Amino acid sequence: MAHPVSPLAPKTYPDLPEVAGVRFATAEAGIKYKNRTDVLLAAFDEGTTVAGVLTTSKCPSAAVDWCRQHLGAGKARGLLVNSGNANAFTGKKGVESVALSARLASEALGVPAEEIFLASTGVIGEPLDAQKFAGVTGEMAGRLASGPWLNAAKAIMTTDTFPKVATATVEFDGVPVTISGIAKGSGMIAPDMATMLSFVFTDAPIAAGVLQALLQPAIDTSFNAVTVDSDTSTSDTCLVFATGKAAIAPITSAMDPRATVFAEALSDVLHELAIHVVRDGEGATKMVTITVEGATSERSAFRIAQSIANSPLVKTAIAGQDANWGRIVMAVGKAGEPADRDRLEISFGDIRVATQGERDPAYDEKATSAYMKNEDIDIRVGLGLGSGSATVYTCDLTHGYITINGDYRS
Amino acid sequence: MAHPVSPLAPKTYPDLPEVAGVRFATAEAGIKYKNRTDVLLAAFDEGTTVAGVLTTSKCPSAAVDWCRQHLGAGKARGLLVNSGNANAFTGKKGVESVALSARLASEALGVPAEEIFLASTGVIGEPLDAQKFAGVTGEMAGRLASGPWLNAAKAIMTTDTFPKVATATVEFDGVPVTISGIAKGSGMIAPDMATMLSFVFTDAPIAAGVLQALLQPAIDTSFNAVTVDSDTSTSDTCLVFATGKAAIAPITSAMDPRATVFAEALSDVLHELAIHVVRDGEGATKMVTITVEGATSERSAFRIAQSIANSPLVKTAIAGQDANWGRIVMAVGKAGEPADRDRLEISFGDIRVATQGERDPAYDEKATSAYMKNEDIDIRVGLGLGSGSATVYTCDLTHGYITINGDYRS
Repeated sequence: MAHPVSPLAPKTYPDLPEVAGVRFATAEAGIKYKNRTDVLLAAFDEGTTVAGVLTTSKCPSAAVDWCRQHLGAGKARGLLVNSGNANAFTGKKGVESVALSARLASEALGVPAEEIFLASTGVIGEPLDAQKFAGVTGEMAGRLASGPWLNAAKAIMTTDTFPKVATATVEFDGVPVTISGIAKGSGMIAPDMATMLSFVFTDAPIAAGVLQALLQPAIDTSFNAVTVDSDTSTSDTCLVFATGKAAIAPITSAMDPRATVFAEALSDVLHELAIHVVRDGEGATKMVTITVEGATSERSAFRIAQSIANSPLVKTAIAGQDANWGRIVMAVGKAGEPADRDRLEISFGDIRVATQGERDPAYDEKATSAYMKNEDIDIRVGLGLGSGSATVYTCDLTHGYITINGDYRS
Repeated sequence: MAHPVSPLAPKTYPDLPEVAGVRFATAEAGIKYKNRTDVLLAAFDEGTTVAGVLTTSKCPSAAVDWCRQHLGAGKARGLLVNSGNANAFTGKKGVESVALSARLASEALGVPAEEIFLASTGVIGEPLDAQKFAGVTGEMAGRLASGPWLNAAKAIMTTDTFPKVATATVEFDGVPVTISGIAKGSGMIAPDMATMLSFVFTDAPIAAGVLQALLQPAIDTSFNAVTVDSDTSTSDTCLVFATGKAAIAPITSAMDPRATVFAEALSDVLHELAIHVVRDGEGATKMVTITVEGATSERSAFRIAQSIANSPLVKTAIAGQDANWGRIVMAVGKAGEPADRDRLEISFGDIRVATQGERDPAYDEKATSAYMKNEDIDIRVGLGLGSGSATVYTCDLTHGYITINGDYRS
């Protein structure tokens, strides 16, 4: 598990402010890892609303099933997350395990079990011994605090090499409203899902239905726009908790102009967390932004961008610092979306390498090779067919990915 | 380019019989490689029919465009194939290059240019200098011969580590009819295509329309059922040439009972060639057969099998000899096809590892680990929903793949 820290890790972390109405603690329950925290317990004050987006997998984890069952009510008083075991594909044992987990958290916090949200991440297919939480939940409840957030982010890591946090503040009538989030994820990361695991906390007073309405579009341009390896997790979960402690009038309608401002800030936080996930992609050495323009629709642009971002040949070329635009042509061609080879234009950064279906007459191998040595690589593909555009974020595919995943269970 | 020979390479090659009406030669045109053959020129006697299946890529190579244009007539007198350059995404230069290639072969063989079929494989996006063929086609035409087939298979290799050949013979009224084929392919290999490059030759007298009708279903269970890396090539081409030299009455209808016998033999040859391509998958150390049963339809079973076969996490686990059924659950779940987690059954070889949505109560880690050390791994997934089944063939994902593709252009 002890892989070197990603070269794309942030050099510094932001100071994350307290979010009124949220307190948490972490502990070592010994689920799988030794000498590190693996459980996060958060408590929310009464009145906290919740919205969430969960994996689209047909084989979801028991914790995802639990959250799906209880999200509708929109009320949250607690969150229990563990790393080391995904409690996925664990049959009846999994169902018993989530019930016990929720009961233990409920007893420790003195709140209803159905208002406890659960998430688990780690190995799939092995039973999760929730009894291990019994040894820590009561003790954790006794030392809940409003920080530090980095500890919360660390407790939920699996193959992650750095903790992922992001924060934003907006002001309404001079009153600051805080949105802070944490996320984990490094492999088994693909678009068209919710995310690996991400939890966002705000003191905004915002109705659960409004929160849910704002969340989905923000997910589409953040977690749903990243891919590490095209593999969609069984456990993807993004939950947003709003405690309502900020001293502003409640936001009860998506038509409220403040909802738009809040949604933008929420988008920023989710986007930053999603980028952190890519920058910690298993084995990543390059951060790659792929923008497709001129497609027949936004959806078509997105699918072509995904096809490029998920191509092992494109990703290994980038790892090899090779401006192999031919493989981008291949990935455009296989996407199954409208494309006209003879209108294609491809750029790496500001360098146009291909135009009108062939190599740019001004192509300069030396300048392009120099560009490919950068840590951040921007690829832009113009289709010349319409006005649909989309951006997808990914990383390269390296020996590190093979090493990490060739012996994950052992 | 000099990668070690795949550990999955065949230990021996079959003796490939002559196919009456087919003669060929290979040469060094110096397209890209040094000290190896890179051009194959084949001549077909008058009366040869042809059928073909070409890439579904929206960015096909110039040679694919050429074949698509001329396949309709169903007549072939020659075939010119080069390795080292794919002549794909080469714009107007590419079009000029195929025209020149066809003209050079046509002049050398003394046959119409529109009855010359072309294929190119290698780097995408760099112009192909067809003038280099001028130095060899005339000389090759002077030494055409009916063997040895291994030389033909070698001349079309790129990252392949071994030549790929297969043969079958059927008898009609005591007269033997031969079907022999060659193929190349190792990376950029994905289902839902034609194939990388494959050429099959038979002396059967068979109408082009019948040949075409027999070819597509044979492709579906051979080249379309293999995947190395989920990347579909711009150049996939499978052509079958029938010289009609076997002394039997012509097969002019797909209803002819002999067409069924011929189709089975053709399927066998294509299947064997397709398996060779997987066994030479870039960096492969394991041959993996994935069978999905109990799906709601055959198409659904195929898509789920593809999802498993293309999952980098499943493929790296197999490389690590890890019976990580959890990743198979993940791949079933992300496929977007009907599946019920709680009915899933998964076996590695004869060992059932999971049943009814959880680990098999009789699961034996030791026996399973021992099985995973085999070179050939069979994975069987039961969905328990219907009667749809499908099989997909793939290989593992190793450091070798990264090494090969991180510096392909250089």
